[in-house]
Amino acid sequence: MTFTIQQALIATEEGYGRIDVQIEGDRIEAIALHPGTDITPQLEPRGTVIDGSYKLLLAGFVNAHTHSSEMWQRGLIPPYPLELWIGELHEFSPLNPQQIYLSALSTALETLLSGGTSVVDHLVLIPGQEVETVAAAVKAYQEIGIRAFIGPLIQDQALASGIPDGGAERKHGQFYCTTEQVLAMMETVVERFHRPQEGISIMVAPTGIQLCSDALFQGCIELSDRHNLCRHAHLLETKAQKLLAYEKYGFSAVEHLHSLGYLNERTSLAHCVWLEERDIKILAETGSTVVHNPLSNLRLGSGIAPLLKYRQAGVNVSFGCDGAASNDGQDLLEAIKIGSMLHNITDPDYRHWITPRQSVEMAALGGVKGLGMDGEMGSVEVGKKADLVLYDLTSLSLLPRTDPIGLLVTGRPTQAVADVWVNGDRIVSNGQPTRLDVDNLRQNLLQYGEWTTNRQSSNIAQMEAHYRQVMGLS
Amino acid sequence: MTFTIQQALIATEEGYGRIDVQIEGDRIEAIALHPGTDITPQLEPRGTVIDGSYKLLLAGFVNAHTHSSEMWQRGLIPPYPLELWIGELHEFSPLNPQQIYLSALSTALETLLSGGTSVVDHLVLIPGQEVETVAAAVKAYQEIGIRAFIGPLIQDQALASGIPDGGAERKHGQFYCTTEQVLAMMETVVERFHRPQEGISIMVAPTGIQLCSDALFQGCIELSDRHNLCRHAHLLETKAQKLLAYEKYGFSAVEHLHSLGYLNERTSLAHCVWLEERDIKILAETGSTVVHNPLSNLRLGSGIAPLLKYRQAGVNVSFGCDGAASNDGQDLLEAIKIGSMLHNITDPDYRHWITPRQSVEMAALGGVKGLGMDGEMGSVEVGKKADLVLYDLTSLSLLPRTDPIGLLVTGRPTQAVADVWVNGDRIVSNGQPTRLDVDNLRQNLLQYGEWTTNRQSSNIAQMEAHYRQVMGLS
Repeated sequence: MTFTIQQALIATEEGYGRIDVQIEGDRIEAIALHPGTDITPQLEPRGTVIDGSYKLLLAGFVNAHTHSSEMWQRGLIPPYPLELWIGELHEFSPLNPQQIYLSALSTALETLLSGGTSVVDHLVLIPGQEVETVAAAVKAYQEIGIRAFIGPLIQDQALASGIPDGGAERKHGQFYCTTEQVLAMMETVVERFHRPQEGISIMVAPTGIQLCSDALFQGCIELSDRHNLCRHAHLLETKAQKLLAYEKYGFSAVEHLHSLGYLNERTSLAHCVWLEERDIKILAETGSTVVHNPLSNLRLGSGIAPLLKYRQAGVNVSFGCDGAASNDGQDLLEAIKIGSMLHNITDPDYRHWITPRQSVEMAALGGVKGLGMDGEMGSVEVGKKADLVLYDLTSLSLLPRTDPIGLLVTGRPTQAVADVWVNGDRIVSNGQPTRLDVDNLRQNLLQYGEWTTNRQSSNIAQMEAHYRQVMGLS
Repeated sequence: MTFTIQQALIATEEGYGRIDVQIEGDRIEAIALHPGTDITPQLEPRGTVIDGSYKLLLAGFVNAHTHSSEMWQRGLIPPYPLELWIGELHEFSPLNPQQIYLSALSTALETLLSGGTSVVDHLVLIPGQEVETVAAAVKAYQEIGIRAFIGPLIQDQALASGIPDGGAERKHGQFYCTTEQVLAMMETVVERFHRPQEGISIMVAPTGIQLCSDALFQGCIELSDRHNLCRHAHLLETKAQKLLAYEKYGFSAVEHLHSLGYLNERTSLAHCVWLEERDIKILAETGSTVVHNPLSNLRLGSGIAPLLKYRQAGVNVSFGCDGAASNDGQDLLEAIKIGSMLHNITDPDYRHWITPRQSVEMAALGGVKGLGMDGEMGSVEVGKKADLVLYDLTSLSLLPRTDPIGLLVTGRPTQAVADVWVNGDRIVSNGQPTRLDVDNLRQNLLQYGEWTTNRQSSNIAQMEAHYRQVMGLS
């Protein structure tokens, strides 16, 4: 697509300026800043002309960690910590590929309408229909047009092994397939769906040290090296996982992943709430990325990730919504707001606090850096991919006229995204997705389920007594 | 107005049921729960019939603490703690009554569209135009139709006295008017505007111990007793205020307010972040209400109010957005979400965590209780005032069909409020205010200001060195 954005508001070092941007195909071809208050076109208009005079232009953000199919359980799971919450989630998870498709569409739509142009879907797989699960998500993301990084959520150990033993003798049972079967499935998925040039990338994404063997991590390292894939995993989301790592390895989860060789500059790690000083140093040295999911960390009571320390240590940080059963929305601006402000209570020196401009940079450039694409996207520069968002500055939620980036981050923007381009394609126009019939999606979603509450989880009944004992809850 | 809501979804002890509700005038006249899945009308329809079959019915919430005119600075103030933030706020605050009117309209609209039917406006006054300020806010609230409790924000000490001396010799200067002048102005405001039956109530609302003399508190007590007014104030929002109270009184701010006689069952206190165990006991004994403003407390780095302790001690708690320069939105659902989840990280025992049903009860009944009106509003019961909200369960943000109250609280509802009634008047219909031209409001807001950043505050330049020294920041 060829188009020219005229006079959009853009952040400059001194404050704000007006810019013209020309896009050819999937790339930014030319940009020109207006001198002073001059409103005459600074670039010869080519293709469609977009009036940006009441709009703010930013590079698209990355929803750097989510699980799309959790959408089907959002609002349902009571206030539980992760280890019990996940028991209920898994018990009621069996879905079909059509549901996977619909929840991927919904996840993509909420991400797009909150400024995201890329989504990292740590995709929960339907047992026995693993490849079909991925196919359904790929179909959704291709249809709506978002850039997607899909990491099939794999493990090779049974759920109960994710809780520390705490000295108790426990048998955890077997996972339903072997390490080799899991890796063979991943090989198939990569061959069939990994098409980065078309906007769909497959990642290796073992769920985390709590449910994965060393052999599984090693197989993922080999696969990622061979196919040049990004790496992803959960890391030290809860205090229980920290205890578990010491039980399993005798040292920290970060040290263990580092010794396996899992950490590099294309590795992004969700949560990172319970890291120690030396763990932070390892992340900085290996160029790994922390994905901060503040809302999920609050809902599950996981804690506050030490984000200010990460930034001070030079660790790259990005933002994620996490799955919609632990948040329970996919609004990236909400994650950015809370993920920026939450840390003010952890350090009395406000000079360390995250500013709105730093927040949007973390959400855009920090996100793509964690995917090894920082030369390609994440800022409005000539030669970069046209993954761009125009915000409507006449939205009541962005009025009165103050500091638009300040208000975008600290406010509560509603109907604020006007236009979104991914790879130069306009996939949202005037706040509506261009390739998706929203009413049709609504009708399809309404066909499932009922308005209810209070389902009884047998998983939780089984796990709760042991969990409370290990965590010292009376 | 006479109307009948049919078949709305409503919370029951077991889960959800369907209800018919008949409203006559400003009150709920009759309600009838549908037996099982029976969809035949349970009440004779009277007046307008509202189809509630894809709607959730809740009593309206209370936005229990805000400062409407801060709307003009939202997004603008950099990350600062309260004591510096307020210096910048005051420096750029001079407004005119037309702006007061517009920001009150905006505050009311955002509150209504996020489930609030009442707003407590701790209204910043224009020096020299105090009564005109209140008149402008009253005009806005009457026009849009929200129930308003206006507490003119009064003080009788200069801004710099709000920071502890920390042993330094400091002169704070005089406030621009005397205690007697402030109280005389309040007397005028009460006489002219206090009309509870018409939905406008005046409260006494000294800003807090940090800027008010004992004589001002005593004058407010006398005024509130004579006119039966609610009482409001900020309380121990920051660590600096806690230090200040010990400097000023030799004991805690709560003990001091209690000894003055300010605390009773119609007193609501914003923030309450830095209370001690014995302070909490005093609030419980006096029946005072804590207004929790979680987003403001995060943005300003004030800390986490010990909400779980308040609930365990039997203290009534409600939610507020706080002013839009310290949040910077007026979305009550966002305040309820964060104000409920935030506390999960303060107590590892999830059995103490706040459930979504408790959250909506705190937001509705907790809010009206703090205003001494819990017999009148805050739940869907016969005889109570018809301050009601219907949520659109076909909003994409509330799909798929799961637990609607769970999703309303833990999700990120967008365009979720369909209809709002206050005093039986339908002031929002199908998501649009019935008495306000939104495009007109937008155009009026656009006339002011410019998109900018980086203003230089001389207040902060003056206050910063002392603040850093007192707070031990190097």
